[in-house]
Amino acid sequence: MAAKPCIPKGTRDFSPVEMAKRNYIFDTIRSVYHLYGFQQIETPAMEMLSTLMGKYGEEGDKLLFKIQNSGDYFSGLTDEELLSRNAPKLACKFCEKGLRYDLTVPFARYVVMHRDELTFPFKRYQIQPVWRADRPQKGRYREFYQCDADVVGSDSLLNEVELMQIVDTVFSRFGIRVCIKINNRKILTGIAEIIGEADKIVDITVAIDKLDKIGLDNVNAELREKGISEEAIAKLQPIILLSGTNAEKLETLRQTLATSETGLKGVEETAFILSTLENLGLKNDLELDLTLARGLNYYTGAIFEVKALDVQIGSITGGGRYDNLTGVFGMPGVSGVGISFGADRIFDVLNQLDLYPKEAVKGTQLLFINFGQCEAAFCLSILSKARATGIRAEIYPDSSKMKKQMSYANAKGIPFVALVGENEMNEGKVTLKDMATGEQRLVTPEELVEALRR
Amino acid sequence: MAAKPCIPKGTRDFSPVEMAKRNYIFDTIRSVYHLYGFQQIETPAMEMLSTLMGKYGEEGDKLLFKIQNSGDYFSGLTDEELLSRNAPKLACKFCEKGLRYDLTVPFARYVVMHRDELTFPFKRYQIQPVWRADRPQKGRYREFYQCDADVVGSDSLLNEVELMQIVDTVFSRFGIRVCIKINNRKILTGIAEIIGEADKIVDITVAIDKLDKIGLDNVNAELREKGISEEAIAKLQPIILLSGTNAEKLETLRQTLATSETGLKGVEETAFILSTLENLGLKNDLELDLTLARGLNYYTGAIFEVKALDVQIGSITGGGRYDNLTGVFGMPGVSGVGISFGADRIFDVLNQLDLYPKEAVKGTQLLFINFGQCEAAFCLSILSKARATGIRAEIYPDSSKMKKQMSYANAKGIPFVALVGENEMNEGKVTLKDMATGEQRLVTPEELVEALRR
Repeated sequence: MAAKPCIPKGTRDFSPVEMAKRNYIFDTIRSVYHLYGFQQIETPAMEMLSTLMGKYGEEGDKLLFKIQNSGDYFSGLTDEELLSRNAPKLACKFCEKGLRYDLTVPFARYVVMHRDELTFPFKRYQIQPVWRADRPQKGRYREFYQCDADVVGSDSLLNEVELMQIVDTVFSRFGIRVCIKINNRKILTGIAEIIGEADKIVDITVAIDKLDKIGLDNVNAELREKGISEEAIAKLQPIILLSGTNAEKLETLRQTLATSETGLKGVEETAFILSTLENLGLKNDLELDLTLARGLNYYTGAIFEVKALDVQIGSITGGGRYDNLTGVFGMPGVSGVGISFGADRIFDVLNQLDLYPKEAVKGTQLLFINFGQCEAAFCLSILSKARATGIRAEIYPDSSKMKKQMSYANAKGIPFVALVGENEMNEGKVTLKDMATGEQRLVTPEELVEALRR
Repeated sequence: MAAKPCIPKGTRDFSPVEMAKRNYIFDTIRSVYHLYGFQQIETPAMEMLSTLMGKYGEEGDKLLFKIQNSGDYFSGLTDEELLSRNAPKLACKFCEKGLRYDLTVPFARYVVMHRDELTFPFKRYQIQPVWRADRPQKGRYREFYQCDADVVGSDSLLNEVELMQIVDTVFSRFGIRVCIKINNRKILTGIAEIIGEADKIVDITVAIDKLDKIGLDNVNAELREKGISEEAIAKLQPIILLSGTNAEKLETLRQTLATSETGLKGVEETAFILSTLENLGLKNDLELDLTLARGLNYYTGAIFEVKALDVQIGSITGGGRYDNLTGVFGMPGVSGVGISFGADRIFDVLNQLDLYPKEAVKGTQLLFINFGQCEAAFCLSILSKARATGIRAEIYPDSSKMKKQMSYANAKGIPFVALVGENEMNEGKVTLKDMATGEQRLVTPEELVEALRR
């Protein structure tokens, strides 16, 4: 007896229904990307470890799936090195390739390798799986899809504007109500500058984020605990208490950050993005949120994050501007801005809110019941005609018991069943059964096609 | 200066134009699979090595990409084992996962793991990349897509019939003229039986295949060289010289294989498939070809292969029936039949014959030239309206020199450009330029949308 097969932990099989739902998500995102002139690329699952290592921090290096070299991967290694059993170090001797960890680094590598073929600004999207050797847990997988769009080679803020329009359009199409949160790394830098505590910016945003929960006194106490001076805490008060409309928040920031050139630049960038989007009229709310600090060391300008309003779940989309994506591969000075939709979380949100449109998961429309070889031959020609008109149709391949064939139709959610016995064959007709109502009627092949196309 | 980045040998980046063409191929195949009631599944890129090893022969085991275990992969290994430097043996200690080598074994694993959720017959398709550590060469890659459809849990020959209809429909849609070759493993077994040389069947089919090139005498000489007896060679003559219509070939085989029960069963199976398909009227030719012997040890019934008629290239699609796909995972008695489209070769054929429909590779339809912040703001609202009607449109994000913006439109093959300067803004209109004819005209935003939608 063979051992029961299994799949690697943190990975998943996707069933037909799950695939239909996932395709609905990907197709929706893809079609909106197309509307905005983004073009698809794909890169290999495997990248050279020299491309991947050192790009995601020390922790990230450990989370890369590494692929063992083919052939004699021991060659060139001394016995001493082997017996050192230094797993991370020897992994780089045994392996020169790894699975991609995200779509951003492979994209940067792509831009540098293909720079002479590309026209800038280059607007690309990419929908592919990535792999991370993270500890698997609920909602976190070792293989998952990312759906990224980036514009590189343009520092115009219109790119930020259009990416937010994309986010707004995609979630409107899904029917998911969201709040689009926006921040700017330059504002955060400005805050650090005016209080003279550049290295404390993460502590500050974490503390500010707790205002609603713990109140101003406790936020200030936490800042004190983190070693921030009384003077700095005093300067931070208007920022901690920042409230009102986006315009009011921006005005407060303009005053508070008056002495920081970088901070003011961040305020003006944000003001441009928000006012342009307000003129265009988005369907979802936009909110300036200073506690938004994702990937702080990575982003250099605008930072975005999307929260679903009707489901308790983390960020379902994020992104921002980075100014030196390709520098690490020897091509400096290329500014870019991008977003990434979290397909797995969107899948969960659509499920929880039951928002999948019926058409998204529809499969076979018509099943011919198989009463034997002669009847099947009669059905096959009608089947060909139906398919030629675009009707998704099947014949049950075996002349099994009626009950088994009807169970098959039910299990696959097939709405119509065609029955052809001797009587029908003699008349050149088909009995068409509506599985929802149970209603049956005798129709010609032409009427059958007509009924199904409606 | 950073090292110039590269990708692992045998892998590829796909550019926007290549992606559009590949999506056309996948979408065409996918839509035909849907017409026939096949449902999509996806399986993880990584499978347990215990699932993959031993399924593709000794050579195949070597060609699996193995993934190094996370953490301390040396634990449990003695110094002696390490110093043995036995690369293949230690690979199985260092690694417990590998990248899938094809879609068939993961599918078998899927069927066994999900047997209780599935309704049989289960008609699934799967379009995903596979990885093989083959020596890369022209047209052979280490990462490539397979597009498989299989029916499991039914031994009805209607499945074979429908798979051939799928092949016929797909290539008709592509506009590629093909010959669909069909054979049957049972006929080959029958031939081996009647001549008493069961182990020589591959030598025999290889020799027969050369008839046109080297003539009967040389074919017989080659059979003699391979150690086949004079008596057997005499019995083989009608099979070597097999010719005429499919019906004539079947009649000859019926007589020649009269004493082989298995052989006759193969003849009758083939006769049913061919006659049913002839009644349905395929667009492409069907040919019984005894030299077709792909994966002989794998298939147990019908064997298919598709050859393009107008391009010199190997088989572009293949498949057949197998009777024990899931037995190796402890689920015996499941018969299946499947086909696999060779996407990379189809890509080459479509390129060589220049058969890609224009719509397949069309991208952005309209580019707004950016004359500055004020003009851009005016364009953005027209842009939103155009996109809302489904027009794929962009604005050049920077107010760069006109020439640069026009080059961008040309490089992306954008057919229409919209120009909005002060005059246009005052009139609330847009100058629309047709990039093919150079013609320009002043239009209202509504006329613009109308013109683009035509």
